Amino acid sequence: MSESLNVGMIGYAFMGAAHSHAWRTAPRFFDLPLAPNMTALAGRDPERVAAAATKLGWDSSETDWRRLIERDDIDLIDICVPGNLHAEIAIAALEAGKHVLCEKPLANSVEEAEQMTAAAEAAKADGVYAMCGFSYRRTPALALAKRLVDSGALGPIRHVRAQYLQDWLTDENAPLTWRLDKSLSGSGSLGDIGAHIIDAAQWVAGSNITGVSAILETFVKERPVGGDFVGLGGVGGADGPKGPVTVDDAAMFTARFGDGAVGVFEATRFALGRKNAMRVELNGTKASLAFDFEDMNSLWFYDASEEPNAGFRRIQVTEPEHPYTGNWWPVGHGLGYEHAFTHQVVDLVGAIASGEQPTPSFADALRVQKVLAAVETSAENESRWTTI
Amino acid sequence: MSESLNVGMIGYAFMGAAHSHAWRTAPRFFDLPLAPNMTALAGRDPERVAAAATKLGWDSSETDWRRLIERDDIDLIDICVPGNLHAEIAIAALEAGKHVLCEKPLANSVEEAEQMTAAAEAAKADGVYAMCGFSYRRTPALALAKRLVDSGALGPIRHVRAQYLQDWLTDENAPLTWRLDKSLSGSGSLGDIGAHIIDAAQWVAGSNITGVSAILETFVKERPVGGDFVGLGGVGGADGPKGPVTVDDAAMFTARFGDGAVGVFEATRFALGRKNAMRVELNGTKASLAFDFEDMNSLWFYDASEEPNAGFRRIQVTEPEHPYTGNWWPVGHGLGYEHAFTHQVVDLVGAIASGEQPTPSFADALRVQKVLAAVETSAENESRWTTI
Amino acid sequence: MSESLNVGMIGYAFMGAAHSHAWRTAPRFFDLPLAPNMTALAGRDPERVAAAATKLGWDSSETDWRRLIERDDIDLIDICVPGNLHAEIAIAALEAGKHVLCEKPLANSVEEAEQMTAAAEAAKADGVYAMCGFSYRRTPALALAKRLVDSGALGPIRHVRAQYLQDWLTDENAPLTWRLDKSLSGSGSLGDIGAHIIDAAQWVAGSNITGVSAILETFVKERPVGGDFVGLGGVGGADGPKGPVTVDDAAMFTARFGDGAVGVFEATRFALGRKNAMRVELNGTKASLAFDFEDMNSLWFYDASEEPNAGFRRIQVTEPEHPYTGNWWPVGHGLGYEHAFTHQVVDLVGAIASGEQPTPSFADALRVQKVLAAVETSAENESRWTTI
Amino acid sequence: MSESLNVGMIGYAFMGAAHSHAWRTAPRFFDLPLAPNMTALAGRDPERVAAAATKLGWDSSETDWRRLIERDDIDLIDICVPGNLHAEIAIAALEAGKHVLCEKPLANSVEEAEQMTAAAEAAKADGVYAMCGFSYRRTPALALAKRLVDSGALGPIRHVRAQYLQDWLTDENAPLTWRLDKSLSGSGSLGDIGAHIIDAAQWVAGSNITGVSAILETFVKERPVGGDFVGLGGVGGADGPKGPVTVDDAAMFTARFGDGAVGVFEATRFALGRKNAMRVELNGTKASLAFDFEDMNSLWFYDASEEPNAGFRRIQVTEPEHPYTGNWWPVGHGLGYEHAFTHQVVDLVGAIASGEQPTPSFADALRVQKVLAAVETSAENESRWTTI
Repeated sequence: MSESLNVGMIGYAFMGAAHSHAWRTAPRFFDLPLAPNMTALAGRDPERVAAAATKLGWDSSETDWRRLIERDDIDLIDICVPGNLHAEIAIAALEAGKHVLCEKPLANSVEEAEQMTAAAEAAKADGVYAMCGFSYRRTPALALAKRLVDSGALGPIRHVRAQYLQDWLTDENAPLTWRLDKSLSGSGSLGDIGAHIIDAAQWVAGSNITGVSAILETFVKERPVGGDFVGLGGVGGADGPKGPVTVDDAAMFTARFGDGAVGVFEATRFALGRKNAMRVELNGTKASLAFDFEDMNSLWFYDASEEPNAGFRRIQVTEPEHPYTGNWWPVGHGLGYEHAFTHQVVDLVGAIASGEQPTPSFADALRVQKVLAAVETSAENESRWTTI
Repeated sequence: MSESLNVGMIGYAFMGAAHSHAWRTAPRFFDLPLAPNMTALAGRDPERVAAAATKLGWDSSETDWRRLIERDDIDLIDICVPGNLHAEIAIAALEAGKHVLCEKPLANSVEEAEQMTAAAEAAKADGVYAMCGFSYRRTPALALAKRLVDSGALGPIRHVRAQYLQDWLTDENAPLTWRLDKSLSGSGSLGDIGAHIIDAAQWVAGSNITGVSAILETFVKERPVGGDFVGLGGVGGADGPKGPVTVDDAAMFTARFGDGAVGVFEATRFALGRKNAMRVELNGTKASLAFDFEDMNSLWFYDASEEPNAGFRRIQVTEPEHPYTGNWWPVGHGLGYEHAFTHQVVDLVGAIASGEQPTPSFADALRVQKVLAAVETSAENESRWTTI
Repeated sequence: MSESLNVGMIGYAFMGAAHSHAWRTAPRFFDLPLAPNMTALAGRDPERVAAAATKLGWDSSETDWRRLIERDDIDLIDICVPGNLHAEIAIAALEAGKHVLCEKPLANSVEEAEQMTAAAEAAKADGVYAMCGFSYRRTPALALAKRLVDSGALGPIRHVRAQYLQDWLTDENAPLTWRLDKSLSGSGSLGDIGAHIIDAAQWVAGSNITGVSAILETFVKERPVGGDFVGLGGVGGADGPKGPVTVDDAAMFTARFGDGAVGVFEATRFALGRKNAMRVELNGTKASLAFDFEDMNSLWFYDASEEPNAGFRRIQVTEPEHPYTGNWWPVGHGLGYEHAFTHQVVDLVGAIASGEQPTPSFADALRVQKVLAAVETSAENESRWTTI
Repeated sequence: MSESLNVGMIGYAFMGAAHSHAWRTAPRFFDLPLAPNMTALAGRDPERVAAAATKLGWDSSETDWRRLIERDDIDLIDICVPGNLHAEIAIAALEAGKHVLCEKPLANSVEEAEQMTAAAEAAKADGVYAMCGFSYRRTPALALAKRLVDSGALGPIRHVRAQYLQDWLTDENAPLTWRLDKSLSGSGSLGDIGAHIIDAAQWVAGSNITGVSAILETFVKERPVGGDFVGLGGVGGADGPKGPVTVDDAAMFTARFGDGAVGVFEATRFALGRKNAMRVELNGTKASLAFDFEDMNSLWFYDASEEPNAGFRRIQVTEPEHPYTGNWWPVGHGLGYEHAFTHQVVDLVGAIASGEQPTPSFADALRVQKVLAAVETSAENESRWTTI
């Protein structure tokens, strides 16, 4: 690990903590071709960003992201701020010759995402790479799902069903955070969690969505203001002032894929009792597989060739032969949510060192963005079929 | 049990066997106000119907259903034939003053279903009753779900998700049975199994679907002919002649309910590995519940008042206090598929004896029929939102 | 089905209802070589037995079991009374040339069981057969487990773990029924439910237990008297008179099998929340399987040849190729507790008709009885290893 | 975090990697009263230990653990070597005034464990603390189990059933590692994994085991030598030389607890398909709970007060109110195996800073050691009941 890769990160809330852990942990469990340094953290508030840098292990801090990009000692910009800032930062960083890791969804609009993708394409010619942080791709069980599909084990796929069910907005007095403000977040459950299952479904299935018919719903039209705009939740005051929720609370759509499969998607934060049920199921002509993040170390696999004694089997994705897991613990000793971020760093650093495009690229993420846009268009247009 | 109720049944395939078992078994485990007699069985082939009558325990047989209706010693007509015959038989029976139990879906079109409902309304004035066989309502776990919703335990319902997943048509050489012929069955997965989840969802939720946006798909366009047109499946010859599949293989739709809930529905016989996954989940503001027929004696219930130690709990619906189960075995000794038919007989006989309308009525079933029609209309019309 | 088999049954509580259902149902779903007639039911109270005969479908009733045995029109005696009466009745019946189906455990002592086995051996020479009702052997999932082991799929077996967990005695005021009186029931959880897992384990593993080390425990030493001595439970009065519980509430033992496997067994009615968790798991050198009656239509199977993508798979034991299930419903449409009794009748009638010994024979059941006795001996003797 | 705590660790295999991660990660997610420094790592091979120090993040390395203890800049010795070295190192460290964290089982004999406990008691008077690394206590779901029992939610406990099932020795050609050599490991499955469930059961139940009756079994008597003696497994050569396995492959025992509960325990590395099934179930008079590490972020809880609609509920132990989880991710975003080690560091550092005895103390671990010894004694003595 002779050469180093100096990282500057912007934002230090939920995603910032996850990314910091990943940069810190990846070289301890994996052999990386470049040694990442946690060089600088950027945020607006000088005291808070300095405290966060100390806590999370960054060597220095900046209060302006532009300054971070200007620093010669930074090789890579890691963007962990709300979606309305992604385009400006990512494009500036790429133009400055910095690699970029950008949280998902890529942007708040297709237009922004297209500009970012163009910037990424341009930078790539100079050996500068951009990656979008659809981290679930690096959850070992989903990575094994992808491997099984790619191996042909499922045969042609007929059905995709994907759900991302959470319940943290069920309470009508949960506060009006930035995630409920369309100007900051772009959309609600659709972009926040729906984007994850769209990316996962397209990636695992190896085929893109070509059209959708959708409905969106906002169950709670206004919520208490004054809550923490950074964190995920918290409970505001029921009696205080309220502001309008300008995003969807739930998104549901049917879909068709380029290879002939049909799909059903649902994303919501109101499925009481479902905490992080990020689920993908595929039914092929030869086999099926099902994943649920609430049992994240398992992949359920049904192989029709075993009939009549076939059945969905729970593969504990902790074997040395499974994706990523050989670098961790003995079999059966499960991993957690944050490991996907560590694996993301591993793959990103590996791609940069070898001069290959890391995935998902901005172009991949743009494809997700277009589905998000099509869902919104269909929902605004009597659910009419909308092609991508 | 002084008075008797003489039953004449038409059809003796899958449904006929289930109904026969129910008529035979109900009085052995439940105290019925009328004693059902298995008086006569009707079918077209004289030898086969006579053999079936002996096997299934019917006292006599007829080769013309009209003759069954004419017989004075028959009080109730039980219709277990394909949907294209429902309307004619049911209307004739009701006009002849016979009670009717008709298998689902009620008919092959809304028009037929409306005529049947009108006939049922007219007959009711004379104390003659009609019931549609949405048997899953009498699965104890679903009946408990209904009871919990009715008690207010869930609060207002926001999400309904319902799936009916089977896989017996995955094989492209499965034969072209009557269930794949639109002129006989009306539709494919939509009417066969989709109807069940539409009825179950509306009934448990206590609210009707007001609009849908749908897609239908036929994966396998033609199949071997010559197979058994009575049974459920069997494997035809891959090399022989083929005929067109004229129904949907899969139906998917989003929905809105009268009370503000949103729903996602999917019915298919191509979900490899899912054998009889008839699933209904409801998320309310206070609690959620989930059912899957592949674990049919359980109901999963999440009660938010138990937070932070809440969790979906698996209620084994076998307690004496649960619907129907007190008449069977000790707790934990599960019931099977056919018990719902026995419970259906219990409730039907009870309603007739007490002069009350049994449920689901033909009007209830007509409501399902209208949803089926709206799904087809939407699917033919670019998935456009279609109201009911 | 030209010839008939006339059955006389003794006892009409929980087991009597299950056996009646089986005699009534078996010929409707299976082709039997002899037609069973439900000829007579015996019990002590004339009014109650007559009412039970009518309810359960028996043609006549008797108030003395000896009279039943004397009747020339009876071919088979079905014994559904507490264990203290098994030996006398079964031996008398066999000596009178009647086939016998006797509920489990075979007897209340090894001595009685040996006498019964001797009587069965003697009768067999005259074509008269005896069978013990370890009904769980005919639960399709357990029968498939046996088939898999017999096929060699598991390789040599190293571990057996079996549990039978119920909770209906958790309440200290549950009444003192006959099952808690050693003079009537022989033992408590040990003979009632422990016997089932001993038989199932030995049968599925294909090897007998050769020694045990045990502890027994009675948590609640006395209970309210005056409750129903026939039924399974019910709640007596907390303030009324109490009588001593003379049986074990829980039995736990380690075991060794003739083929080198080791085992752990536990039976209790105090495992709060476990309703009928009759569980058997076997670990071989090549595969493992696990069964839990609380999900009775499933068998979990792990095949090491699939590693690294192996996992316990949930086989829904409802395929036409599976034991017994082809005579019932389409795949995925589960069976219930009572179906095992119907299958027991099917196999018993088949064995009688073909002149073969039905299984489990009294000799098989005697082997279970010896394990029960060894458990008691070990428990009384500082858990010392006790051979069988 | 003004003051620091300088740590020296001995050993860098499986446990060393886990402990290193914990020391590195704890201060990033928790506010610690002392700042841990990863000062030095000790191992025998100079090159390997230096490489490991770099990889795992230790500032320096030593080739003699005695030298580590002599260093003035070390405050705490973390012992991650096989059990035969525990006593000597721990006692030397404590006598040198260093705090000690010692991996489990505490020692290879009761005698050693007693000496260690005496040393710990002596050191405690000087404010020097010793802790044994039964890390599973800090798995959030088990910590919640403990909290529930302590709150009285279960009432008096009647049943404990604990299993630790793995399968990595199923293959007869798995190599003869140090874990299979009694002189190094003390015992086999008993001390390696049985110790975990003994500690967990006693801790969660809040009561100690007072007697046992046991059997031990070694299925594979000799194995290939020459494999890696440090790692967990690997496959040696089937054709090469073999050496004797001198430990148990499986341990099974019944137990009684001081509070009247009865228990059944099983530990094995031959339960094919069970990868890390560390399971504890408790049945009380009011509630039950069940844990399985193969679904490590869940705790199953049955509350009888909810009957007849009670059921085991799957609590996802990821709420902010749950033990440790509030410092990590949003609800539903599960943790992994290594988090328990991080929590162990958090609690150890907290205890040292506040001058309180960390738990489990060496005295707690001695209690486990005595159970291990009693199991061996009973197994050698015809399973006779052996008190502790």
